[in-house]
Amino acid sequence: MADILTEQQFASDNYSGICPEAWAAMAEANAGHAPAYGADAWTQRAADGFRDLFETDCEVFFAFNGTAANSMALASLCRSYHSVICAESAHVETDECGAPEFFSGGSKLLIAPTTNGLLTPESVRAVAERRCDIHFPKPRAVTITQSTETGRVYSVAQVQALSETCRSLGLRLHMDGARFANACAALQRSPAELTWKSGVDVLCFGGTKNGMAVGEAILFFDRAMAEDFDYRCKQAGQLASKMRYLSAPWVGMLESGAWLGNAEHANACARRLAAALTDVPGVSLLFPVEANAVFLAAAPAALDALARRGWRFYTFIGGGARFMFAWDTLPERVDALARDIRECAVPAAA
Amino acid sequence: MADILTEQQFASDNYSGICPEAWAAMAEANAGHAPAYGADAWTQRAADGFRDLFETDCEVFFAFNGTAANSMALASLCRSYHSVICAESAHVETDECGAPEFFSGGSKLLIAPTTNGLLTPESVRAVAERRCDIHFPKPRAVTITQSTETGRVYSVAQVQALSETCRSLGLRLHMDGARFANACAALQRSPAELTWKSGVDVLCFGGTKNGMAVGEAILFFDRAMAEDFDYRCKQAGQLASKMRYLSAPWVGMLESGAWLGNAEHANACARRLAAALTDVPGVSLLFPVEANAVFLAAAPAALDALARRGWRFYTFIGGGARFMFAWDTLPERVDALARDIRECAVPAAA
Amino acid sequence: MADILTEQQFASDNYSGICPEAWAAMAEANAGHAPAYGADAWTQRAADGFRDLFETDCEVFFAFNGTAANSMALASLCRSYHSVICAESAHVETDECGAPEFFSGGSKLLIAPTTNGLLTPESVRAVAERRCDIHFPKPRAVTITQSTETGRVYSVAQVQALSETCRSLGLRLHMDGARFANACAALQRSPAELTWKSGVDVLCFGGTKNGMAVGEAILFFDRAMAEDFDYRCKQAGQLASKMRYLSAPWVGMLESGAWLGNAEHANACARRLAAALTDVPGVSLLFPVEANAVFLAAAPAALDALARRGWRFYTFIGGGARFMFAWDTLPERVDALARDIRECAVPAAA
Amino acid sequence: MADILTEQQFASDNYSGICPEAWAAMAEANAGHAPAYGADAWTQRAADGFRDLFETDCEVFFAFNGTAANSMALASLCRSYHSVICAESAHVETDECGAPEFFSGGSKLLIAPTTNGLLTPESVRAVAERRCDIHFPKPRAVTITQSTETGRVYSVAQVQALSETCRSLGLRLHMDGARFANACAALQRSPAELTWKSGVDVLCFGGTKNGMAVGEAILFFDRAMAEDFDYRCKQAGQLASKMRYLSAPWVGMLESGAWLGNAEHANACARRLAAALTDVPGVSLLFPVEANAVFLAAAPAALDALARRGWRFYTFIGGGARFMFAWDTLPERVDALARDIRECAVPAAA
Repeated sequence: MADILTEQQFASDNYSGICPEAWAAMAEANAGHAPAYGADAWTQRAADGFRDLFETDCEVFFAFNGTAANSMALASLCRSYHSVICAESAHVETDECGAPEFFSGGSKLLIAPTTNGLLTPESVRAVAERRCDIHFPKPRAVTITQSTETGRVYSVAQVQALSETCRSLGLRLHMDGARFANACAALQRSPAELTWKSGVDVLCFGGTKNGMAVGEAILFFDRAMAEDFDYRCKQAGQLASKMRYLSAPWVGMLESGAWLGNAEHANACARRLAAALTDVPGVSLLFPVEANAVFLAAAPAALDALARRGWRFYTFIGGGARFMFAWDTLPERVDALARDIRECAVPAAA
Repeated sequence: MADILTEQQFASDNYSGICPEAWAAMAEANAGHAPAYGADAWTQRAADGFRDLFETDCEVFFAFNGTAANSMALASLCRSYHSVICAESAHVETDECGAPEFFSGGSKLLIAPTTNGLLTPESVRAVAERRCDIHFPKPRAVTITQSTETGRVYSVAQVQALSETCRSLGLRLHMDGARFANACAALQRSPAELTWKSGVDVLCFGGTKNGMAVGEAILFFDRAMAEDFDYRCKQAGQLASKMRYLSAPWVGMLESGAWLGNAEHANACARRLAAALTDVPGVSLLFPVEANAVFLAAAPAALDALARRGWRFYTFIGGGARFMFAWDTLPERVDALARDIRECAVPAAA
Repeated sequence: MADILTEQQFASDNYSGICPEAWAAMAEANAGHAPAYGADAWTQRAADGFRDLFETDCEVFFAFNGTAANSMALASLCRSYHSVICAESAHVETDECGAPEFFSGGSKLLIAPTTNGLLTPESVRAVAERRCDIHFPKPRAVTITQSTETGRVYSVAQVQALSETCRSLGLRLHMDGARFANACAALQRSPAELTWKSGVDVLCFGGTKNGMAVGEAILFFDRAMAEDFDYRCKQAGQLASKMRYLSAPWVGMLESGAWLGNAEHANACARRLAAALTDVPGVSLLFPVEANAVFLAAAPAALDALARRGWRFYTFIGGGARFMFAWDTLPERVDALARDIRECAVPAAA
Repeated sequence: MADILTEQQFASDNYSGICPEAWAAMAEANAGHAPAYGADAWTQRAADGFRDLFETDCEVFFAFNGTAANSMALASLCRSYHSVICAESAHVETDECGAPEFFSGGSKLLIAPTTNGLLTPESVRAVAERRCDIHFPKPRAVTITQSTETGRVYSVAQVQALSETCRSLGLRLHMDGARFANACAALQRSPAELTWKSGVDVLCFGGTKNGMAVGEAILFFDRAMAEDFDYRCKQAGQLASKMRYLSAPWVGMLESGAWLGNAEHANACARRLAAALTDVPGVSLLFPVEANAVFLAAAPAALDALARRGWRFYTFIGGGARFMFAWDTLPERVDALARDIRECAVPAAA
């Protein structure tokens, strides 16, 4: 069993471990005693690191995982009778077991149509203006995922257009950045440009998929919006007593640049797979490959054959398969996957 | 500043780091890929380790911290219009920022009088029977902390007496075991004897104070009570995607016996400090030293002097100070503390 | 303005007042003192009246309005990480401002496809089985509206088929009976046949639209499911201190048979309007007229003209209009509406 | 049984019925149709009536009962991690089944010591400043009950002193006015003086105990604080569809002055009972009689004897009994009660 488990699989970028830079910082932080609940030097240094990286004096909080980070951020923008506009494919809608509704005490998620998983100003406006009576939850926020659950990225212009629409509608803009680093790597734009300079109010910056064990950062670019957010974290069971183990890895990632290097590597692996499959009959891309995900359309028989060869991946109705790459993906393992896809696809297409 | 921070302080056992056994397991778990969300071998092994240690086929869940573990466990025993009986000094009441109320959607905590922080069958019964009308939340659970926030331990007989009272009143019994290992070490009784064999329904077993970075285990001894608790964890932002980093340290702790050894060491340090102070004039114990805490009564001037020497500790109205010891406490540092207390106390008492 | 307001309008059956039978009982109940919070004779008599009408020893509770009744009933069937399957047109989804999510602390509503607003066993099963992992709220209940928001009714056989599907999937069946009386009148079947004999677990029986000022009854046919529901009502602000004013009108309605007579009249008015429009060019029924609602498809210009004549009604995208009738609808006013629709439609269609 | 139920009892002022002025307005409102959800003329007139009475352009909302009104008002001032300071005897703490915690998603009530049920600036400050760390819910509001649950009233100067303390601590001031009219009658001061002119932010003005069937008004004196409160009412199941039946009685009460006359009568009845008992041996007042309540200290045997004579009342540990008077209390019935108390007390005291 150990072989199967340790041999790399690409069902999720969560299968990866802790990257060397994060590990080293954690090891260094493990020397001796430190004050609890974030009053330690590592936590200060990590928060300052984010402020440097984002070129602004933002408020920084740490949460254990992305579900909690997103849910707390959205809850802070809403009351229970407000609603949040998101894509149908948004993680908050599809894979957080109702966490946004739980943390907010009932805020409803309103699904807006997308193009390949990308919200548009038009779709946001249409949903926001569909109802304006007290019998339906009042829209108060929009959440976009960068990079998206479909492996796409919003350009700076697209984020700006969305934030302008939000402003005009009285809505706040939240960014689920579980794979924010992958978006930065894909766009080659600065974190500042992709967020507050483009009108994003709150960012949840994902560390887990980026190479850490646990831990996401929540950045409020308007400090007033962060009022009492520390109480919220505490009450929601998201304040680590030994906070240095959440913050030190961020120090390792930010100061070394690994946050970006890891993402660049993951994105490159996605492109590598896509490139290796361009001429495989019966196999096509469901979405353009822009970040660290490859979504393939293929015959069910081909995917079954691939699974029988030991590959793990998520499938979708109608013959889709998802492959996700991480900081530690071995290029040769990508090549092996590509070979197997080709071999499984050809007889199926024949 | 580094000196002050890394030199051992005893304000909290949360100041300690990760113990070698937990660290080694985490390092081992960091090799290669593993399935996410607990479908990995480490998580299975940790859960089985708990079942072995507790000699029963309990349901085991992992949460990030004690606030979340306690709150989710209590919420699973209650609906929003139910209430939970606890001690005035209970962590759920005093230091979780209303987390039990938040996770349960409003369940009220009812304070019962204690003897040195220990609930008694009489006090529980008195509170449970005080109101029996629908205008006040109906009691549904009792929570006790083992060892208590005052450094005391409930004997097996005391737990049994409480659980019998609970049964007769239709109440469930929850144990906040943030320092459960310290209680086991103090009482030299098995985990089984201290929990399900004595009528405890749910235990939150603390790993953080015991030597880990993050992570508490929630054990349901009646599996029926755990129905859909996995959904609760997920929705509450308490399901780690890279679960192995929460579970592997438990494997290291349980299989090596460090969970108990760490607690024994911490308890011994508390006794060491207490023993060194028996003849100090003006200094006395607020509570018997049974686990890893020492609560001292001393003149404010003495405590001020102690603080000026660089010691960090929590103080209480009227002249009390708390010192907590952990797996890594250096005996010589305890001795240094004892010397400083003596020197600060004598002039103050004179 | 008084003329416009008091002249009958059919935008909603909520525009109607209190019927004579309810009013008389309220007047009688207003003599002298009565114990509070439901410990009065009227409340006992109303609850017994429901047990007689439904031919079963059900548990009966009273709430102020339908939003609260539905939300509390659904919350009692779910925990926050569970979900409720409903139609896209369900009032709980479209017109309760997220109340079900609020009362339950986050339970998600899952939309199932319908035929004219009627859920089918197939659509319920498809939604219930779409996800079975902990990353998505677990379905625990189905809610159907009888009669539906589209003016349709579920036959006894349809309710039975749905309840069988629910049983096989481990789901509870809730009926939003804001217009339950209209369904009974339409189907000419007994309340028992339409509910517990067909597998309904909980019914919210609407009194407001049926001719009362405020007040809905919540009936649990399995008394075990009603455990502590009285506490829920109290905590949710739904326990009337002067309960007799909620219960006495029910006594008046149930004992006189007005509950059914009122509904029969309202249904007849709907049929009257529909019958008068069968030959109007450009006007057609969006749904079969089975209860007290008429949904018309008509040209926007026709509807605009109708509104200019002083009629109030809800419109829908694409040219739909809704008309609702109540216990007090004047047939001549229906005829006047029919005439105006005809006159407005003909030039528009020409 | 009818005799016992209809013969006046003074266990609660909720035992009274609907007063003539409220009834007449309701009857008048029952003529014909009216728009739903508060878009009717009665609701506008009632809201304007409050603005006239309070001499300010406040925001006015209507809720079904006091528990809901208080809970929604407090929830609007807090987030789940905030807390509300109240008296130990406060209705929100003792008799709302955890409703404030439920509506707010977990806000904790903090008990401050009182003098006869009256909060003082010192007690509020002491509780507010007891904790200032994120491990305990942050105080955000103070709630006082006017008149109090102990039958006392806060003077204008006392309200002012409390509001000044609140301002200096960053707290909002809420007034539970379930018996606000009784306080106005007792103090002979205007509603404006007792509320916004003295620094009250939000008032819940009780109509039920004052002579209505159901219905409380929530007044926000700072309109900005009322933002989206209409959505909150709707989501919480507190928006009446046939709103006129909640608002018309208010019109009747406000325009006729019955709101004040009813309270004056009730207060006079309380004074009448107290005056009749001044020389009864063994019977004394637990609190000064200022509004419509009389709290008596008497021997348990005396109270038992009184109960055996058919009187209903609430008792308290140690020999206390509460009697509450309403708009419809018959003076001769008060006299009968006084006689029976005297007769029961004398042998007991002998």
